Amino acid sequence: MSSPFVHFQPIGAKVEARKDSSLLDLARDSGVALESICSSLGKCGKCKVIVKSGGKALGKVTESEKRILDKRELKDGVRLACQARVASPANITVTVPEDSMRGHHRLLASGIERKIDLLPAMHKYVLKIPPATLRDLRADDDRLLQVLKIKVKRQLEVSPGVHRHLPEALRSSSWTTTVTIFRDKEIVRAEPGDTTARLFGIAADIGTTKVVAYLLDLRTGEVLGNESSPNPQIPFGEDLMSRIAYTNKNPKGLEELQRVVAHGLNTLIFKLCADRGLIPDDILEVMVVGNTAMHHIFFGIPTTHLAAAPYAPAVRTSLSVNPPHVGLNTYPFGKVSSLPNIAGFVGADAVADLLSSGLYDDREIGMMIDIGTNTEIIAGNKERLVSCSCASGPAFEGAHIKFGMRASTGAIERVWVDPASYEVRLRTIDDAQPRGICGSGIVDAVSELFGAGILEPSGKIIVSESNPRTRTTADGQAEFIIAQGKETISGYNISITQHDVQEIQLAKAAIFAGVSILMKRLRLKPSSLKNIYAAGAFGTYVDASSAIRIGMYPDVPVDRIRFIGNAAGSGARMCLKSTKMRDLTDKLSRKVEYIELAAEKDFQQEFAQAMFLPHRDLSRFPSTKKLESRRPSSR
Amino acid sequence: MSSPFVHFQPIGAKVEARKDSSLLDLARDSGVALESICSSLGKCGKCKVIVKSGGKALGKVTESEKRILDKRELKDGVRLACQARVASPANITVTVPEDSMRGHHRLLASGIERKIDLLPAMHKYVLKIPPATLRDLRADDDRLLQVLKIKVKRQLEVSPGVHRHLPEALRSSSWTTTVTIFRDKEIVRAEPGDTTARLFGIAADIGTTKVVAYLLDLRTGEVLGNESSPNPQIPFGEDLMSRIAYTNKNPKGLEELQRVVAHGLNTLIFKLCADRGLIPDDILEVMVVGNTAMHHIFFGIPTTHLAAAPYAPAVRTSLSVNPPHVGLNTYPFGKVSSLPNIAGFVGADAVADLLSSGLYDDREIGMMIDIGTNTEIIAGNKERLVSCSCASGPAFEGAHIKFGMRASTGAIERVWVDPASYEVRLRTIDDAQPRGICGSGIVDAVSELFGAGILEPSGKIIVSESNPRTRTTADGQAEFIIAQGKETISGYNISITQHDVQEIQLAKAAIFAGVSILMKRLRLKPSSLKNIYAAGAFGTYVDASSAIRIGMYPDVPVDRIRFIGNAAGSGARMCLKSTKMRDLTDKLSRKVEYIELAAEKDFQQEFAQAMFLPHRDLSRFPSTKKLESRRPSSR
Repeated sequence: MSSPFVHFQPIGAKVEARKDSSLLDLARDSGVALESICSSLGKCGKCKVIVKSGGKALGKVTESEKRILDKRELKDGVRLACQARVASPANITVTVPEDSMRGHHRLLASGIERKIDLLPAMHKYVLKIPPATLRDLRADDDRLLQVLKIKVKRQLEVSPGVHRHLPEALRSSSWTTTVTIFRDKEIVRAEPGDTTARLFGIAADIGTTKVVAYLLDLRTGEVLGNESSPNPQIPFGEDLMSRIAYTNKNPKGLEELQRVVAHGLNTLIFKLCADRGLIPDDILEVMVVGNTAMHHIFFGIPTTHLAAAPYAPAVRTSLSVNPPHVGLNTYPFGKVSSLPNIAGFVGADAVADLLSSGLYDDREIGMMIDIGTNTEIIAGNKERLVSCSCASGPAFEGAHIKFGMRASTGAIERVWVDPASYEVRLRTIDDAQPRGICGSGIVDAVSELFGAGILEPSGKIIVSESNPRTRTTADGQAEFIIAQGKETISGYNISITQHDVQEIQLAKAAIFAGVSILMKRLRLKPSSLKNIYAAGAFGTYVDASSAIRIGMYPDVPVDRIRFIGNAAGSGARMCLKSTKMRDLTDKLSRKVEYIELAAEKDFQQEFAQAMFLPHRDLSRFPSTKKLESRRPSSR
Repeated sequence: MSSPFVHFQPIGAKVEARKDSSLLDLARDSGVALESICSSLGKCGKCKVIVKSGGKALGKVTESEKRILDKRELKDGVRLACQARVASPANITVTVPEDSMRGHHRLLASGIERKIDLLPAMHKYVLKIPPATLRDLRADDDRLLQVLKIKVKRQLEVSPGVHRHLPEALRSSSWTTTVTIFRDKEIVRAEPGDTTARLFGIAADIGTTKVVAYLLDLRTGEVLGNESSPNPQIPFGEDLMSRIAYTNKNPKGLEELQRVVAHGLNTLIFKLCADRGLIPDDILEVMVVGNTAMHHIFFGIPTTHLAAAPYAPAVRTSLSVNPPHVGLNTYPFGKVSSLPNIAGFVGADAVADLLSSGLYDDREIGMMIDIGTNTEIIAGNKERLVSCSCASGPAFEGAHIKFGMRASTGAIERVWVDPASYEVRLRTIDDAQPRGICGSGIVDAVSELFGAGILEPSGKIIVSESNPRTRTTADGQAEFIIAQGKETISGYNISITQHDVQEIQLAKAAIFAGVSILMKRLRLKPSSLKNIYAAGAFGTYVDASSAIRIGMYPDVPVDRIRFIGNAAGSGARMCLKSTKMRDLTDKLSRKVEYIELAAEKDFQQEFAQAMFLPHRDLSRFPSTKKLESRRPSSR
């Protein structure tokens, strides 16, 4: 019998339930980055987890927990991971709320997955085949297909990989054979004996900057683990456009980019498998999402035409190819599938976002926003959906920002500015000394500076002697010091410059112009938006109030903003688990109308208006009007 | 305008129609081995050809021709190739009768092809695609599929290779695109512009000893050329069984044999293409036939179980895979297809033979015999067909025969023995000095020796002083000298030994036992057999009377024996040209009943009886009885 395990959900990590270890220790051992900043003293309350099953195996709720947790939390099985220790080893399942995770793993947020019925594309059947004898001379394939005919009524194709293993698969386990069938139409594998216990798949989100892969047990739908790495195409160009340019300039460029990303994904898959005693050949299907450019490059499809008007993608429809076609090392006659794309800049990842958000099924009007270098927006409800893509640029990833950095240890992620004293409070990732400022921190900073009257609606930083944190540098640029040298790791000030503010204005204006065009198309007012689904890492961590205050999100009550995490990843997992979801995405990708902003005559005007904080037309931001009244009257 | 050509049919060779050249010279230039043994003097009459079109471009019929050709021949357009010269260059089409070919090319006999409607699996459509604009943002695949929907009503799959070329295929010839569709269901290629003039395929017969490939223009059905080479698997084992044993003994053996035969076929394809300004990437489909073992090895399917009872093949059904799966260099998203197999030793080549013979469609009862190391026999008519395979061994290829050799220059191919004087007349291939004796020569020799009373019905050579060509060698073996040292190239006698006779008895007994079992199963007498279709090189060149006299073929009037040449090759070509034929073979392979001789209780007895010349039961060979009366009464 194998040892009992603690399973951490939704990450899918698994670790032996060692007696006397705290859940926090076990979590860390298994790579789950639980937050805790009180040295496991049970004081900070940051390492909350919810014990889903096996709670009896844990020691009793401690006094510290009783102090920190409220009655309802205690009733729901919430524990502090640093306090809850394994008393008698048993299988324990623990859910780690998004809030309790930090640092790197926050970016890996698995995304919210809606409940779906398991209906994977790959299905296994165990067959008892009548043996070949001199009285029954049928060929192996006839023999197999005739038995299978009873179970599957459809005409089946046989993949060429099956033929090569048929004699062995039939004979080496006394004519008991397991066949794997893809989508009830193609036999892709024949193996000796009963292998139905092994049914594994990979869901992969190929982002421009990060590749994330999830290993799933397709019998249960359970996420067995995830791994991520930076997209290995980064050295060929930070953003999409420079990578496309690379493929245009270099005859073998596309091949090269394809190869490196396939290699990167192979590495993740290998690790996911190795950690669980599997090999890549055990993986029957890989479900891939990514933006249209990442999708095209991954499948070896030229992207040249994505970079020039009218930006038509080569492929909209969902694909299913054999792994060697894209250089993956998984079972060669298995599949590598993709979700469909919508347009050149609204790709399979946006379709996954849409699926994961549930917006397509809502009666109420809503909007899904996935912010990145390109921001995809889909608005509408079950009746009608419209989409667009905004060139929001990399400012939210910290690029082109003087002290910008990615969301990693030491990045300032939250900023509060006291409107009276101009005092600044910060929160950094891992509570480390500040090294720089990440996307959510910049948005917070701009929002707070605006709220505190330090920024004009035009974005101009008001440099004033009464505000010692403001100054004009030698090159004539205004800036606001957000962290002073004595606090920072480098010993130098970390500031927000006029240029930084402008970058944020450009980025948020691009997004809000898209939002406005979609709303116009659907004749919506902000108040009719009942839900805004914020997808992606940035969308999850950016403070919703700040995003509204700077005019990036439409002005809705904050509780209407729903964080759906890495929705691309969860959409990919949903489609890996269910062909019904997959078929639905095919319908959705045809149904969603695409608006090319470049072809919209209102776009420039919308963009220009949205450059203001929060917007030139304040009637669109009634809540900001209210805030205005709280601003210091004059300086 | 390109120069006019002379086309040689059915070989498919093509050569520029150079003024003043004789058809014989042009034939030789293009690799067609026309017979002529009179140094082009127009005396031997061996180089007869039939001018099908363009005859006016040739000089007038010469006096020599008038001497050699009869009126009917002259009327039919028969010419002597050495005499007919190009007077004014124009396109000329010439049919080369089998009888006029010699040496190597005789073995390449293209086989008789029945007339069929052209209906290739690959079809090209030229499409005018609406350009992508900011007002029409559809993806390339949607754009293409919507135009195609008007032409092809079925739901189409798109091969992954198409996606990679779609943007280029649509845009680089002003939105005129040619798509290639396989069997009305899968788009396998998209190319810029109108490429409908290029539609090429390869038919290949992978024999145990020889690989033959034909290049076809699938628009016209024309054979543009053929190439052959020894099967490069020969170094791994002369016969099937030793190759199967090789794959069993060596872990990478199957892979190795697969690779060498694919490489061999690639070489033939490359040559066929290069000679006509094509590249392998122009080849859209390769249609392969071969016996079951050759078929399995070519597709990388294990053959272990073909070598042991019950000899069940892994695959009966016809296959279609992408060329890289089997290592062919043709268009990677095109197809490599096979005809179906019937049983472990009645393979796709026999199905092709059957198709080419037309037996499956005959009202009259008949039999198709394809003699080789394994001899496949199919008997019946359109109502019912039964088949078997006989282990006839390699004696007819000259193996295990003292002076045996393959059918090449210097091989004795015809033998006449004067029953009175025992004088021997010979014919050798290319009329060269005798080097050895090939299959048809050995059968002739045994038949003639038997007819001349030199062999007893048991096969024993009667050594007699009155017959100076008979003797007993030092090792006690009787032999008959067929060519004396003064005639042969080596200067030594060429003889038929007692052992040689026995080898032929074993081989022919194996065949006739199979013939007998099939006839019993169908309750046939020899007289009910209206047609015997003799397929394959050996079947084409062996003298039918001799084959009947030794008891290899059933005793039917000689004019019922029809030579269908390399029927496997012609069957492959027919299926390459017509999906209707292909679908028919799928039905035939299920319809043909297979009799495993090893499981037939009568087999041993039939075999033993057939060891006699012509048979122990002479009632089965009434014509031989008649011959008996012509035999010298006693010695």
